[in-house]
Amino acid sequence: MSKNDSISMSVIRRLPRYYRFLTELDEQGVDRISSNKLAEIMNVTASQVRQDLNCFGGFGQQGYGYSVGQLKDEIKGILGLNNGYKAILIGVGNFGSALANHLSFEKLGFELVACFDNDKRKVGQTVGEMVIRHDDELEDYCSGNQVDTAILCIPKENVEAILDKLYSLGIRSFWNFSHYDISTRYSDTVVENVHLSDRLMTLCYRMNHN
Amino acid sequence: MSKNDSISMSVIRRLPRYYRFLTELDEQGVDRISSNKLAEIMNVTASQVRQDLNCFGGFGQQGYGYSVGQLKDEIKGILGLNNGYKAILIGVGNFGSALANHLSFEKLGFELVACFDNDKRKVGQTVGEMVIRHDDELEDYCSGNQVDTAILCIPKENVEAILDKLYSLGIRSFWNFSHYDISTRYSDTVVENVHLSDRLMTLCYRMNHN
Repeated sequence: MSKNDSISMSVIRRLPRYYRFLTELDEQGVDRISSNKLAEIMNVTASQVRQDLNCFGGFGQQGYGYSVGQLKDEIKGILGLNNGYKAILIGVGNFGSALANHLSFEKLGFELVACFDNDKRKVGQTVGEMVIRHDDELEDYCSGNQVDTAILCIPKENVEAILDKLYSLGIRSFWNFSHYDISTRYSDTVVENVHLSDRLMTLCYRMNHN
Repeated sequence: MSKNDSISMSVIRRLPRYYRFLTELDEQGVDRISSNKLAEIMNVTASQVRQDLNCFGGFGQQGYGYSVGQLKDEIKGILGLNNGYKAILIGVGNFGSALANHLSFEKLGFELVACFDNDKRKVGQTVGEMVIRHDDELEDYCSGNQVDTAILCIPKENVEAILDKLYSLGIRSFWNFSHYDISTRYSDTVVENVHLSDRLMTLCYRMNHN
């Protein structure tokens, strides 16, 4: 896995899809799969499948294809889903609580360990199986507990103050649902942005030009 | 705008960001902006800004830069945000209701006109300002009303049956939060997929290899 440094984001973004499809095949009891068949499921070319997986060292055998369970486990390891990263949620509004209630964090490499809101009326209520804490408790919590990632479900105008605090507490990884540009302020962070409104505007563009 | 056919998805995906930043600048009363300054805000190069906007015909003037209000309006038109597309929501669970309550659909080119769920207990309740209808009413509703887009917030295993119905009712545009691959089944559709769990796994990968 020494080749990882130079792997393009488009290959990386396909890995979760491989993992999802292989998990399904594994659950269906499928033992092995050809690159042609895997390509068909993934809706890419067989050569693309081989190229993608070669980035991580191959795994296939000429004339046999891929062992489904083994390839699934390899990709799980490459994704780091066994690392048990600890995540906190900042902002328990509609979206925040939807994420907390809806996503299977543990299957996706994370444990959601705490959630915070600046609204005193929410503090003490529960979401998922967590009690909502006030933002003021962030420092205390992060000092006493491992926190690897913060999930930001707060409006853009509230991000900067809380981001500065999280950064000073050593957090360098963010799943960002706000429109605030984290990596411009802190370039040594890992940020996945989900900009729902941008995606809806892109759909609008594509309908407009279809 | 005759060049639109060949514009790459990466340029298209930057358009909503241009639109957001220009809207903010316009609200702040900024009249004009250089490509250097716009590049700085966008966190891309000035040459990238010029290239991007040249795809749609330019709009800048040597030595003047861009008129903020005019460029914003041009991009709004290119995105089709004035087209008034009508959207329906399928699945009023956590995520569906978060979308309905949280997103400013009308600013993003759409009007959310109706929502549907297969859970009879939800039918008749309201979300946003809409009364939740049963999936059985889809055909009636779509026959009597303009519907351009369906937003799918339902589990993968429930998608196929409802997709077939929506397709037969003439709907060709989907904002898809499920893991079902719509464009493989119907290639003549416009689909924006939002796969939250894939994004979280990608973050996990990037932390694992950082």
